[in-house]
Amino acid sequence: MAGLGAGLAIRGVGHEVTILEQAPAFGEIGAGVQVPPNAARELIRWGLCDKMAAIASTPDRINYRSWKTGKATGFSRLSNHEQRYGAPYWQVFRPDYHTILLEAAIAAGVKLRPGCVVSSYDPPNGAVVLESGEMVKGDLIVAADGVKSIARHAVGQEVEPHETGDTCFRAVIPGEMLLADPDLASLVSTPSFEQWLGPDHHIIGYNMQKDKNFNLLMVIPDDEKMKGYKAPATGEEVRQAFAGWSQMTRKLLAMIPEDVERWRLIDLPPVQNWVHPSNRMVVIGDAAHATLPYLAQGAAMAIEDASALGFALSKISKRNKVDLPAALAFFCALRRERAHTVQRGSWTNRFFIHMRDGPQYEMREDVFQAGDYPGSPNLMGNSLFQDWLYGYDVLQDAEKQWQRAHGTVLAKL
Amino acid sequence: MAGLGAGLAIRGVGHEVTILEQAPAFGEIGAGVQVPPNAARELIRWGLCDKMAAIASTPDRINYRSWKTGKATGFSRLSNHEQRYGAPYWQVFRPDYHTILLEAAIAAGVKLRPGCVVSSYDPPNGAVVLESGEMVKGDLIVAADGVKSIARHAVGQEVEPHETGDTCFRAVIPGEMLLADPDLASLVSTPSFEQWLGPDHHIIGYNMQKDKNFNLLMVIPDDEKMKGYKAPATGEEVRQAFAGWSQMTRKLLAMIPEDVERWRLIDLPPVQNWVHPSNRMVVIGDAAHATLPYLAQGAAMAIEDASALGFALSKISKRNKVDLPAALAFFCALRRERAHTVQRGSWTNRFFIHMRDGPQYEMREDVFQAGDYPGSPNLMGNSLFQDWLYGYDVLQDAEKQWQRAHGTVLAKL
Repeated sequence: MAGLGAGLAIRGVGHEVTILEQAPAFGEIGAGVQVPPNAARELIRWGLCDKMAAIASTPDRINYRSWKTGKATGFSRLSNHEQRYGAPYWQVFRPDYHTILLEAAIAAGVKLRPGCVVSSYDPPNGAVVLESGEMVKGDLIVAADGVKSIARHAVGQEVEPHETGDTCFRAVIPGEMLLADPDLASLVSTPSFEQWLGPDHHIIGYNMQKDKNFNLLMVIPDDEKMKGYKAPATGEEVRQAFAGWSQMTRKLLAMIPEDVERWRLIDLPPVQNWVHPSNRMVVIGDAAHATLPYLAQGAAMAIEDASALGFALSKISKRNKVDLPAALAFFCALRRERAHTVQRGSWTNRFFIHMRDGPQYEMREDVFQAGDYPGSPNLMGNSLFQDWLYGYDVLQDAEKQWQRAHGTVLAKL
Repeated sequence: MAGLGAGLAIRGVGHEVTILEQAPAFGEIGAGVQVPPNAARELIRWGLCDKMAAIASTPDRINYRSWKTGKATGFSRLSNHEQRYGAPYWQVFRPDYHTILLEAAIAAGVKLRPGCVVSSYDPPNGAVVLESGEMVKGDLIVAADGVKSIARHAVGQEVEPHETGDTCFRAVIPGEMLLADPDLASLVSTPSFEQWLGPDHHIIGYNMQKDKNFNLLMVIPDDEKMKGYKAPATGEEVRQAFAGWSQMTRKLLAMIPEDVERWRLIDLPPVQNWVHPSNRMVVIGDAAHATLPYLAQGAAMAIEDASALGFALSKISKRNKVDLPAALAFFCALRRERAHTVQRGSWTNRFFIHMRDGPQYEMREDVFQAGDYPGSPNLMGNSLFQDWLYGYDVLQDAEKQWQRAHGTVLAKL
């Protein structure tokens, strides 16, 4: 997402872009991803509104559901986002989303080179060396190699992701299976962002490809047995992990395929500088600010990065004495606090959604009852944070900050 | 506070005001109270800036201190509030504050009648019957009789305050005692809003009357033994309740007087309507929206109420066809959501400040380390909530909402 998005945005402001993809073909994992208004706004700017709308599901609300009953005890409206924030809240299948970005990149004249595994970076020369031995050079290396980034080290940051105590399973259920069960049909017929919240566990569910598929992310405590970050798992393992949950959950989990995936959820501490001292290389997306998925903002931050980087690189101008170092410094300053805030918010939200029984759990139920309001400890239902998160217009902010930083200088010309 | 403030504000817009005080003399309990910028702004408008500044302490910051070490592991800046919000953050001794309001009310021509115990309300006739048998009548009864309000019932609301599981002790230490101890002197020499936070317990401390006195509010779990809401207690009881805390706390609590007060902390559920159906009576302040003290906003909300009610009553006009019912409906609509949000915020903040050891406690330490930021689960260090809370200008909002509600009608005239 970050790579293709940045390619599109940077090409969009007139620069030549070559994307090196390590996989033999461009592609994405077969799971869901959320596209909140702060990301949808940029996709619309890139002319992709109709294509996205055609493959997206549009959730009515977030339903906060009890693990004990399966019933929603509170909700946050999402269907009003288009009116409230000028862009919709979409939920999509990653491969569909990826295809749209890929086609747009091709149409825009971005050069795509799959099967290019980077063996080393040479930032001062704007060069990467591929495993084939080939050296690829440019004015700037934009690296988007994910949470376990090698590029992050190459720009001089030693920050490492760490385990969080959480693991998740991913699975997809065909919508028609849910529609056939009266107890589950409404999950598809009234598409929403479903959250079943229990002690130390939660399940996220939403539709993708209209009502064709239902995506599930099921988070449980990490038993530390898995080696590495990802492993195959069985439906039975999932059902055991959620034993004792409501009938609704049991019915839902009875429908997941027997082969599911287990992922260790890792988190990245704040990275202060995303730019190599030579100013010939920058890291973006998860490589710079991977986040837990508990605000559903990881992919959206990558899209914001892309637009922000496009903006910054559009400002390079001999006449205005703005060079690449100035543009990159601006980009990093514009993005850093917001990215760190989303990282922190995702991680602190974990404590809100994983509460055990007790007074705090009862407090949470009362918060859900009250609905969205300013200062709610439910970050996703905190109307101040919603405005900050979803109402953000990265290009508008970039323009404002640019004027603040460079306005006086330009006015002198 | 609510009564005198409302008297001042309503007199200030030209109405005749008589205040009936049940106590034989006007006065206040000998403890501290906080005057954040959202309240200070109104006091400044009432011309009381110099008088308040003369008796206030001005805290540099909120210090979030560990119960284990006494050391601050994080802080929120308060000294920048004047610049950031256009009004300072003051901490004062209640009797001083009360005297300033009382003198201002007298100077403004508010009639004051101490020793008037209300025996019953007759809202449809705008009348109250005193214990003496006297009936006092007016166009409007504004009742500010506190959390255990009788007036709230008289306007038709059956909401009752409930216990919260928390009790507190109050005490005042002379500043010079603290200054004489090298480990405690900085509490006075660098005046701040001190919070020592421990599992299920916390201590709030701040200076009043410049560096003359240090106010302490010490919150502990309610052992349910006390009958009623208030009882005398001993310094030894306090010290036992905080046994095992840091040396700093032990030294501090060694200085409290032997006779302290114990108060049961009660909370009021949201009250939806503060106006009697006859539109001849309204409840304000704690009677309408008493809150736990965990955002230090109870008294400030009363001052906001006062200004808002003054504004609303200033709009009554035959020419503009605005009558008392319209003014009161406007007042209640303007105030309700904000008051409820402060009530909820104070109560949910309790869980943040009372965390026990464990992953959530460590999360809190990391949040303190990060400082103030948007969406922080520390409501007092959440920059979005700070702006919402402290940056609020009740008269500006009143004017805006009035234009929204009545602008079109007025434009037709």
